[in-house]
Amino acid sequence: MTPEQFRQHGHEVVDWIADYWTRIGSFPVRAQVSPGDVRAALPERAPEQGEPFAGVLADLDRVVLPGITHWQHPGFFGYFPANTSGPSVLGDLVSAGLGVQGMSWVTSPAATELEQHVLDWFAELLGLPGSFRSSGTGGGVVQDSSSGANLVALLAALHRASGGATVRQGVQPERATVYVSSETHSSMEKAVRIAGLGTDAVRIVEVDGDLAMNPGALAARLERDVARGYRPVLVCATVGSTSTTAVDPLAAIGPVCQKYGVWLHVDAAYAGVSAVAPELRALQDGVDWADSYTTDAHKWLLTGFDATLFWVADRAALTGALAILPDYLRNAATDAGAVVDYRDWQIELGRRFRALKLWFVLRWYGAEGLRAHVRGHVALAQELAGWAAADERFDVVAPHPLSLVCLKPRWPEGVDADVATMTLLDRLNDGGEVFLTHTTVRGQAVLRVAIGAPATTRAHVERVWALLVEGHDWLAADFAEQAAARTAEREQAAQREPESQPEPEEADSPA
Amino acid sequence: MTPEQFRQHGHEVVDWIADYWTRIGSFPVRAQVSPGDVRAALPERAPEQGEPFAGVLADLDRVVLPGITHWQHPGFFGYFPANTSGPSVLGDLVSAGLGVQGMSWVTSPAATELEQHVLDWFAELLGLPGSFRSSGTGGGVVQDSSSGANLVALLAALHRASGGATVRQGVQPERATVYVSSETHSSMEKAVRIAGLGTDAVRIVEVDGDLAMNPGALAARLERDVARGYRPVLVCATVGSTSTTAVDPLAAIGPVCQKYGVWLHVDAAYAGVSAVAPELRALQDGVDWADSYTTDAHKWLLTGFDATLFWVADRAALTGALAILPDYLRNAATDAGAVVDYRDWQIELGRRFRALKLWFVLRWYGAEGLRAHVRGHVALAQELAGWAAADERFDVVAPHPLSLVCLKPRWPEGVDADVATMTLLDRLNDGGEVFLTHTTVRGQAVLRVAIGAPATTRAHVERVWALLVEGHDWLAADFAEQAAARTAEREQAAQREPESQPEPEEADSPA
Repeated sequence: MTPEQFRQHGHEVVDWIADYWTRIGSFPVRAQVSPGDVRAALPERAPEQGEPFAGVLADLDRVVLPGITHWQHPGFFGYFPANTSGPSVLGDLVSAGLGVQGMSWVTSPAATELEQHVLDWFAELLGLPGSFRSSGTGGGVVQDSSSGANLVALLAALHRASGGATVRQGVQPERATVYVSSETHSSMEKAVRIAGLGTDAVRIVEVDGDLAMNPGALAARLERDVARGYRPVLVCATVGSTSTTAVDPLAAIGPVCQKYGVWLHVDAAYAGVSAVAPELRALQDGVDWADSYTTDAHKWLLTGFDATLFWVADRAALTGALAILPDYLRNAATDAGAVVDYRDWQIELGRRFRALKLWFVLRWYGAEGLRAHVRGHVALAQELAGWAAADERFDVVAPHPLSLVCLKPRWPEGVDADVATMTLLDRLNDGGEVFLTHTTVRGQAVLRVAIGAPATTRAHVERVWALLVEGHDWLAADFAEQAAARTAEREQAAQREPESQPEPEEADSPA
Repeated sequence: MTPEQFRQHGHEVVDWIADYWTRIGSFPVRAQVSPGDVRAALPERAPEQGEPFAGVLADLDRVVLPGITHWQHPGFFGYFPANTSGPSVLGDLVSAGLGVQGMSWVTSPAATELEQHVLDWFAELLGLPGSFRSSGTGGGVVQDSSSGANLVALLAALHRASGGATVRQGVQPERATVYVSSETHSSMEKAVRIAGLGTDAVRIVEVDGDLAMNPGALAARLERDVARGYRPVLVCATVGSTSTTAVDPLAAIGPVCQKYGVWLHVDAAYAGVSAVAPELRALQDGVDWADSYTTDAHKWLLTGFDATLFWVADRAALTGALAILPDYLRNAATDAGAVVDYRDWQIELGRRFRALKLWFVLRWYGAEGLRAHVRGHVALAQELAGWAAADERFDVVAPHPLSLVCLKPRWPEGVDADVATMTLLDRLNDGGEVFLTHTTVRGQAVLRVAIGAPATTRAHVERVWALLVEGHDWLAADFAEQAAARTAEREQAAQREPESQPEPEEADSPA
């Protein structure tokens, strides 16, 4: 494709996206296809000859869109949001157009330096400790996901705990232990498996009533494990758990970690970016204790996936675990120690120029714009929680300090609550106007309303609430009807066959 | 940013990229900045208020471009190429605009199904085994890099070798062994470290004169390790090594792996895509033995980073190692086993819709276009190798079956060859017209000329050859001048002080 052809088709694609964003509210939020439908619309074999671009664009509408669950839809309240925005898309577009590799400083210095700079900016904007700045012992880096960030944090912790012995000798799965709570994201357990420890190394610390890790229970487990000869490696504290946005108390957990010499990693994947608003920083009081910290700009900060912001207080532990320098990557700048080579901060060698989209977003919205974005969603969530708390049909089942509200519908006696709740969920999602997901809180199914799509306004939150109430009323009426029918049946049966019924105790008796 | 603002600024960015591609040849290939220069051009603090988009675009030229090493430049011959193309950029742009998550089938079915489909297409186009198709026991998936692919292959191998015990119990670093050669990419050793084995688990198998792994040496090492109680886990065979595109003989290595029950992983990161041309498939004869295989569409197949094509013959080993299903991700399609959830095929949970760019590239160029792309570079490389072989100033130091040619300049007696070669490299790269990198072959510095940027034509290859010859002549003349000066000095000194010179044998004698 020549530059001039790219110019033409590029304008067409930009227009297609602008149109998509304009009409996105008209799609059912959740894809309406069944397994195999999308593949069935595709030819069995790859094209031998090139095709005109118009055919590809047409197939976006014909093949792709029906199979899309629209995460940017204003009625998307599922999982956590996956924010994107115009400036983010355009920053990523520039990155794709430049097509450079940022694995080493020398392979494109701007890719490394803009990333260092933007991560320093964010450390300040989020009120994170000075040790995380590139001017100190630590620094920030863009990771592909908080899953990846949790893994590299664990690798750095293993390196430190072993005095570097893991590099040659590997891990000691029979001794190493890692501390999480029942609410910690599953990616931490996955990281423990990937790092070769196995899930038996995971210690699940008790949570309090608000689903936050109990620091006393953590201390007791550490004490016991150390006494038994285990070597505690890492505590993963969560700020804003995936299930309910529970917040582990960093200020109490930090000193416990220090006492036992354990690496404190803070997984604030969703909630961390909220600290851009100073009044929300109290949630992560004690973050100064953290050895590493992750939050995703691609969840709730108007930046497209992937844009995980990861910081470490001691970058030497991280690069000690991950650095490797074959001859063909040697260069003067690296040899002189004058630069950062981000390949040594991550799993992969290659890396995209992801700082561009963060830079575009910061400059277009400014810090004030980002604060307004977060504050708006938090305010909407508090309104929704208020409506639910005042309504006898729903319980708000967990603290909701940010923009996720977890609702448990109340059902009549005799109804299987979990089945009823999931039926309500299916009904809402089948309707297509909104999309929610669920979780389990204290063993019971609960609906999650995660507010955070950039296009979501108060009207959309009002609408999801109206649909929740409406669906609940419809199901409750249905349950009442069924119950009445069952009662009527029982009464009819009792009237029809009063004498032919055997005495159950005698007829069913085994002897 | 509203959709209409996006439309306007999107057109501006598309134009900026089209212009950049048009004028790319006018930039020095390698960035001309020193460490810190880019950061010095950026404000110390993030903007409080949003800024007009024009300022951001202007800063691309002012701040970013001077710090860019232009990988898409026709004079870029460094490392391996990092191909991109118009359709790839536009496919990625659509992906960014949709902003969906492909972690589970249900989160956007089209993202999963298009990826399965395109990977099946590529398995056929590259002549890969039937076991790699989604219709069989295996399947393909897009990974973020071959580093990531090497890691997940190792995790799958560990899972299989342990009968699944790694999930709970972790690895056994004191027993597990992994086989590479001196030419294997460093990411395999990095994967061994990440997976908790430590580098002591790595066995470096001897290579032959052409730098390919010696299958007999591999068998001998396996035999000895098994006899000593080690448990061999994985052999990493390379098709197209990073240093010289050496090719390990799969047809001979495969039966050895089978005999010892070891997982055979094929790292064809650069070279694998060349199999789109059937006449180049002989390089990977025996690929049917592979348990897993990786090649990067983002190196040499007109697709922007990241687009690693990874296949596995037994997907159950992979998902066994990586699957984890918290409650909030449960859904009917997954529970029914009717779909593939790609989050269980990779390290990360979240994932972008990367199949779009592969689909766009395949449809724009067609299989024939991709073949022509690869064949063109291979032909240019053979021409260059021919020129060098016929020239007494250079040696071609390794087989060059694809598009990388490794050249060792010949220098006069008495010259430090490595220093001279690196001086020649610096001279070429400082000139700005071309960019090369180096490697070490049999302990000696060698220049790598990797042909593969989409814009590179025969004229650019002729030019890099002319610059090599010119630089060599200049340096050789300089060396000759220096040598003559040294001789003259010695003669002068000898004439000036013939009697005051002590007899060296006597004066330097220790006793």
